[in-house]
Amino acid sequence: MSEAAQRAFDLKTKPRGSLGRLEEIAVRIAALQEVTVPPIPAPAIVVAAADHGVAAEGVSAYPQEVTAQMVANFVAGGAAINVLAREAGAQLVVIDAGVVTPCEQPEVRSLRFGAGTASIVRGPAMAREVAAAAVEAGRALAAELVGNGIGIVALGEMGIGNTTSASALSAKLLPAEPAQVCGRGTGLDDAGLARKVEVVASALAVNDVAADDPLGVLAALGGFEIALLVGVILGCREERVPVLLDGFITGASALVATRLEPGAIDALIAAHRSPEPGHALVLAELGLEPLLDLRLRLGEGSGAALALPIVRSSLALLADMASFDHAGVTDAGR
Amino acid sequence: MSEAAQRAFDLKTKPRGSLGRLEEIAVRIAALQEVTVPPIPAPAIVVAAADHGVAAEGVSAYPQEVTAQMVANFVAGGAAINVLAREAGAQLVVIDAGVVTPCEQPEVRSLRFGAGTASIVRGPAMAREVAAAAVEAGRALAAELVGNGIGIVALGEMGIGNTTSASALSAKLLPAEPAQVCGRGTGLDDAGLARKVEVVASALAVNDVAADDPLGVLAALGGFEIALLVGVILGCREERVPVLLDGFITGASALVATRLEPGAIDALIAAHRSPEPGHALVLAELGLEPLLDLRLRLGEGSGAALALPIVRSSLALLADMASFDHAGVTDAGR
Repeated sequence: MSEAAQRAFDLKTKPRGSLGRLEEIAVRIAALQEVTVPPIPAPAIVVAAADHGVAAEGVSAYPQEVTAQMVANFVAGGAAINVLAREAGAQLVVIDAGVVTPCEQPEVRSLRFGAGTASIVRGPAMAREVAAAAVEAGRALAAELVGNGIGIVALGEMGIGNTTSASALSAKLLPAEPAQVCGRGTGLDDAGLARKVEVVASALAVNDVAADDPLGVLAALGGFEIALLVGVILGCREERVPVLLDGFITGASALVATRLEPGAIDALIAAHRSPEPGHALVLAELGLEPLLDLRLRLGEGSGAALALPIVRSSLALLADMASFDHAGVTDAGR
Repeated sequence: MSEAAQRAFDLKTKPRGSLGRLEEIAVRIAALQEVTVPPIPAPAIVVAAADHGVAAEGVSAYPQEVTAQMVANFVAGGAAINVLAREAGAQLVVIDAGVVTPCEQPEVRSLRFGAGTASIVRGPAMAREVAAAAVEAGRALAAELVGNGIGIVALGEMGIGNTTSASALSAKLLPAEPAQVCGRGTGLDDAGLARKVEVVASALAVNDVAADDPLGVLAALGGFEIALLVGVILGCREERVPVLLDGFITGASALVATRLEPGAIDALIAAHRSPEPGHALVLAELGLEPLLDLRLRLGEGSGAALALPIVRSSLALLADMASFDHAGVTDAGR
């Protein structure tokens, strides 16, 4: 149906192709949904939080307690993603996928797979069965959201240390050298960055898993929130609902998801470009070009939330613009 | 007040600077308005339409009649900018600044300065007094909008042939060679592009005006809609209201406006990057980096409209995010 959607755009009162990437995005969603004109979707932002044993290795500028503190901030409505969810008119779904201290607030959905992962420099982050269960939980969550009327899902995450996990996953799966994928995360200095590269190299050495076993790689190097988001992506693909990726961590989830099921790429839209060097490599591997480049390095789903109005506008243009014939405008491109 | 706004951002629950360009935009608006936390502004999109005598030289893929047809489309609600204005919750203000056939619809504001400009390959587009009057009308329009509660203005335009006028203005003021600034507009082929370069070179040769006389350059090479938008920019600057530029044509207006009053730059935000080669040169001269790069080449204010939610979000983040102290989140950057 992507041809039908592109034909519909070509009849609209504008030069052919002049809406650029907006046409591309709407046409991709039309293809995903096998319709000519997709409906305007109700958006949700799924923010999955979890802790990482590797945080003990000094790979973050922030202490581990900040993961739980930020979940409390999400509940209180004071974080960036709260503001951006309100601006985008999106439902915010906060998941505790395995914070060290369980998040007891009733507004947090508890889908816990442990009290933080084990440190990836000592062995696998989690058992293979746990990774599989987290993926399945994400898949079920996607189905539930779609059952409740959600038509587009933006992904976000919170977890001190999780750019290290994303770096290790990316280095393994792309593959790439640790120094190519590691960045400063939320604010490492030069010594911290060098330490992070060493930690990722150690994690790859300690965890001798085959790159063509994506579930094994996820269990060895991943995080609970990353595994859950892998499942959300796969579930959304099954439901034909587009998924807006955020930065490097959700990108690593997408990389795992497409290795598990290559067709998952059809549901994915890259919202923004993170300054983390690994993110550009992951996007290139996925063949996705981000919609925004605003030098965001926050995570939480902030970039994905900012791209929601752009995706919505692309669908509104396809649905609501007049055709040349209808509007009585001369079509020079006919 | 930009320091106070940046300090306020630095106390928010996020790593310092991690909201990237969103912080930069909100801080610039705070400086413009001399406040720490600007209010969330009500948006208007001003789309000025006019015809260009130079259209007779074969510089557009579309016939001149399309200008009036598209204004009728704006009134009927079927154009891209109608959809995008609704999506952004913005008031759409359509101006007839000098379409060949006057736009008689009551929804169109008539601020006409002629029935299309004279061809710039034969002499000046308009008299100097007419250019001055159009600028003053734009200035008054800005004051009126702000008086009615508008707090941010996105600029748009419609006028077959107006990328040729923008190219000539840019070539004169930057300065640059015609071949450096001319692009395919809404869809010229190679021969059409070569013709456009020749036409701009002729216009520059015929109109012997000094580059340090911006009003003279505007009268010689401009369009009525471009002159009106120059005035809207100057008026918004006086009212301390930010202006979102669209593509190359509104960029040419900004170039003229800042040559008339250099302080006008403080009000300007570049919304998107047009594929027209002259646009990048104009943005570099203005020192502005666009928020979006979506390969739009439509005009109408489409890029400016798409950037409105981003600017709004930047101000909402400054206004509404919690501080580290208030949220009980550990601040590693302190």
